Amino acid sequence: MFGVLKRWLIGRPLQSKSINDEKYFIRTGLPILSSDAISSVSYATEEILLVLVPAIGVMAFKSMLWVSLFIIALLFLLVFSYKQTIEHYPNGGGAYIVAKENLGVIEGVTAGASLLLDYILTVAVSISAGTAAISSAFPALAKHNVTIAIILLIIMTIINLRGVTESAKVFAIPPYAFILGILIMILVGIYRYFTGDIVVNENIESIKGTYDGLYMLLICKAFSSGCSALTGVEAVSNAVPNFREPAVKHAKITLMLLALIVLTLFLGISALDLIYKVAPKDGMTVLSLIANAVFGKGFMFYYIQVTTMLILVLAANTAFSGFPLLLNVISRDGFVPRQFSFRGDRLSYSNGIIALSVISGILIVIFRGSTHKLIPLYSVGVFISFTLSQFGMFRKWFKDKEKGYKHKCIINGVGALVTALTAVIIGINKFTHGAWIVIIVIPLLIMAMLKIKRHYDGIADELRISDEEIEAINFERDKYKNKVIVPISSINVATIRALRYAKTISDNVTAFYVGIDEDGIEKIKKKWKLLNEDIKLEIRYSPYRKIIEPLIEFIDENQKDYKKGDMVTLVMSHFSVRTWWHIFLHNQTKIFIERGLLRRNHIAITTVPFKLEI
Amino acid sequence: MFGVLKRWLIGRPLQSKSINDEKYFIRTGLPILSSDAISSVSYATEEILLVLVPAIGVMAFKSMLWVSLFIIALLFLLVFSYKQTIEHYPNGGGAYIVAKENLGVIEGVTAGASLLLDYILTVAVSISAGTAAISSAFPALAKHNVTIAIILLIIMTIINLRGVTESAKVFAIPPYAFILGILIMILVGIYRYFTGDIVVNENIESIKGTYDGLYMLLICKAFSSGCSALTGVEAVSNAVPNFREPAVKHAKITLMLLALIVLTLFLGISALDLIYKVAPKDGMTVLSLIANAVFGKGFMFYYIQVTTMLILVLAANTAFSGFPLLLNVISRDGFVPRQFSFRGDRLSYSNGIIALSVISGILIVIFRGSTHKLIPLYSVGVFISFTLSQFGMFRKWFKDKEKGYKHKCIINGVGALVTALTAVIIGINKFTHGAWIVIIVIPLLIMAMLKIKRHYDGIADELRISDEEIEAINFERDKYKNKVIVPISSINVATIRALRYAKTISDNVTAFYVGIDEDGIEKIKKKWKLLNEDIKLEIRYSPYRKIIEPLIEFIDENQKDYKKGDMVTLVMSHFSVRTWWHIFLHNQTKIFIERGLLRRNHIAITTVPFKLEI
Repeated sequence: MFGVLKRWLIGRPLQSKSINDEKYFIRTGLPILSSDAISSVSYATEEILLVLVPAIGVMAFKSMLWVSLFIIALLFLLVFSYKQTIEHYPNGGGAYIVAKENLGVIEGVTAGASLLLDYILTVAVSISAGTAAISSAFPALAKHNVTIAIILLIIMTIINLRGVTESAKVFAIPPYAFILGILIMILVGIYRYFTGDIVVNENIESIKGTYDGLYMLLICKAFSSGCSALTGVEAVSNAVPNFREPAVKHAKITLMLLALIVLTLFLGISALDLIYKVAPKDGMTVLSLIANAVFGKGFMFYYIQVTTMLILVLAANTAFSGFPLLLNVISRDGFVPRQFSFRGDRLSYSNGIIALSVISGILIVIFRGSTHKLIPLYSVGVFISFTLSQFGMFRKWFKDKEKGYKHKCIINGVGALVTALTAVIIGINKFTHGAWIVIIVIPLLIMAMLKIKRHYDGIADELRISDEEIEAINFERDKYKNKVIVPISSINVATIRALRYAKTISDNVTAFYVGIDEDGIEKIKKKWKLLNEDIKLEIRYSPYRKIIEPLIEFIDENQKDYKKGDMVTLVMSHFSVRTWWHIFLHNQTKIFIERGLLRRNHIAITTVPFKLEI
Repeated sequence: MFGVLKRWLIGRPLQSKSINDEKYFIRTGLPILSSDAISSVSYATEEILLVLVPAIGVMAFKSMLWVSLFIIALLFLLVFSYKQTIEHYPNGGGAYIVAKENLGVIEGVTAGASLLLDYILTVAVSISAGTAAISSAFPALAKHNVTIAIILLIIMTIINLRGVTESAKVFAIPPYAFILGILIMILVGIYRYFTGDIVVNENIESIKGTYDGLYMLLICKAFSSGCSALTGVEAVSNAVPNFREPAVKHAKITLMLLALIVLTLFLGISALDLIYKVAPKDGMTVLSLIANAVFGKGFMFYYIQVTTMLILVLAANTAFSGFPLLLNVISRDGFVPRQFSFRGDRLSYSNGIIALSVISGILIVIFRGSTHKLIPLYSVGVFISFTLSQFGMFRKWFKDKEKGYKHKCIINGVGALVTALTAVIIGINKFTHGAWIVIIVIPLLIMAMLKIKRHYDGIADELRISDEEIEAINFERDKYKNKVIVPISSINVATIRALRYAKTISDNVTAFYVGIDEDGIEKIKKKWKLLNEDIKLEIRYSPYRKIIEPLIEFIDENQKDYKKGDMVTLVMSHFSVRTWWHIFLHNQTKIFIERGLLRRNHIAITTVPFKLEI
């Protein structure tokens, strides 16, 4: 049943060797990996204006253009840095790898934890934003916000579980449609400006600013809000191994294309805003106001609305492809459970996809699908990882002292300082709005990751055998004793099978019976005599009706002649029932015995199945 | 941790032989077993008046007395019948045993299912009623009704888990206090009547009846409502083995005392009601109105209120002692899971207590702790079991034809008819108020019980070996082959231990490796060569990254020379981790393999523990 459903939803399993079919071309990788970055264009200008317009009125537009240019400069700083990262780290991992190798383990894990958290928040925020877009189109759905968000999340999870290429096919169209729409809007808007065919928003002249602080502080604040446009830039460098060969070249081209698109759209929208003097208004996004000014309420207006909504939801998909990959890289280093590095039936890292889906689903439910409450948690993590990555690259150049390293040092050093500054500004501005949660969660995550690593390292130490040691191992049979104990509760077909099996594996077999009343003990003694077997029957009376304790006592009593390497084997019959509810009709003594004894290194437990036909 | 908490809540374990210390004296058995019956006195008169007063106004009081007398007559019919049941069935079981032995299995199971359901409802109703009493005293608590009810339920569960005597000690006082209070009220009330010192409720004269149907039908309806006073009478006959020796004598005395108390209190309250002409009023119970009329709002008024509340909660305790005992009896016959016949640490049937507590807790939550909604479900079951028990006794006398059997036949025959009639009347009157749930659930319960019985009987047949067969069994060693397979994922300390163990139990050992990529396969081959062992290493490539399927295939391929009795043993190393969360850091491949193979009768599974020190 479950199997059939799974096949239908996820598709038939794929062979490991078909993995190359699942990798990105540039044309498929670009929309998947850039949805997050491109979608932020739809609200970045608005975020800046929301800070500036109430403060300085009509002066906001000129300042906005400067802030935008500065963000674009930062974007190119980041892109050049990540280009170098891709070249030097073709196996993915981005900030995590760069920080770990050049700065240290703690720094790497910090970058990893920040990025993981940010991916989770990306999914929660984007899906909530997409849901909000849907329910502002159909207000009747507003009260089912959380349900809709969870349904979108499940759909997205299933599509991603189907595998990389398939999700690329489905998700490639909306980003291209969005890009196309915005490009047309920019061209038409500028054309109409030069032909003088525009209606400028004159109202804006009447808005007076109320700000009397330092102009630079205001610009900083606007800049830090606008920086949300930069989240998602790191996705490409994390996903290098997901590209077809030559992967490095494909990833670098994709990153450059991403940067050009963000540059064009962001500057274009800011320029249109400057021309049409559009300020944020309640219930209308700046983007929709610009579209209205350029196109009027025609087809193109609704086209922009719909593709915006789609790309917001798809931004979550960037995280769905980035998160499992990053987890895989971190998991190979042992900082998160190993299970995250196994590919599922469809060659996607299904455990990572499911983990992302579950955690972000919980966040959506806790925050009742409110974008407004989730956003302050967002982007602190990204800028922490940006900073660590930049600083890591800076250290690398400085250490290696290759030709032209000074130039590279300056780029990455400035980048590190600026992103660090941005992280601090965002942290301070949004601390009371929820950023404190992130500032608590990241250290906890780091601690957990270090603890997991310690566990894996410890196990590896315990288990390791060097090649020399392997050659020295020999398995002398009969060197070690194996005493077999068969706990029985009555003499029946199943226990006879267990006893028979026990005799095939050892000459030293004892049957063991725990009596809780005298009748039972007499009965078993009488029946045992009939068996006429040389297997010894050990009977213990248990006044407190315990079963496991007397067994453990008996085993311990017989340890006098124990020497290292000897084993005690418990042979138990186990009913395998036909229907699930039959389990409740039998004592699960076996489970309790297993639980009670598994911490004892010298006790092997054997279950001899007895298949019930009833 | 859990162990310490359990000791503290439940007490230290008791030895099986101390069971006699846990049994009832009459003075402890009476309050425990009669709380249910005695508590119903507090609302039975009211139930009758609620039917009669709105229908026939002031004429209600005289009719009420007749109805009460008829109920008392039925009570004595039941008591005499149950006295005979106790004599003939000293091992408890009441209606279940009587019906099963004299009528048939289905009838017995029907009586059993009805009683079980009724015990569950008794707990839900009584605890809800007690909670309602508490929250009408403290209205601020009203909105936490369900929470309070669940807390009461948990307290009651813990006390009952501590054992029979201990619950008797705690619960013996409130019933005696309640009986004493009502007796004082009756005496004072009658004394004041004869001294003429009373204020009669004259308002009642103004109430006009609106009823124009058949008088007999009305009386029937009032009678069936008043019959709630009779629930709980069967508790003593079910609990005979819980009494100290001579148990039968003690139980019979307890039953007679119970009947006398119910008779006195019920008739006394009805008489006072007749004298003081008290009719039910919103928000005040008839009992509290009578207490007010007799004592005024003094100490004795509040004393009656508080003891009423306590005895209502304690009525649940009757079920807590009856339900596990009945389940034990039914479980010995194999109609419910065997686990219900084990005595826990404190010699109580703890599984039954916990089951009762969980199910009634669920009912309380579903019905939001509303007595009003739960009551209609109640008492249909009791009267079904009454009927079956009476009819069973009737058949018994008729079959045995002992001296004086005709007299006994008449008593039980009339009893059977009257209780059957009552069951039908209750079923019809309350069908739409929820009794239909009971009428659906009882047959479902019966079906489940018969199905369980069939399962146990089937297993017994499969497992049974006659004494002659036992004597014929012989365990020839070396007659059967035991092929051992050791699945390995790498060569490390744990797998070496598993391989070494495998060699001690068989000469035919194969190591088995599933490779999902070529690197892994090469690596294992190289290492295996270093081992320089004659154990064969079987390597399978798994293109779909499955682990279990190739293993099953390999086992099946090697079945060519299989003959019945041969075994295949899988030896697997199993990490036993130190902390619960470590479980998530390891693949639980072992569990999946066990699940995949346990339905194969010839495959034994051995786990060699490897205790991780990390």
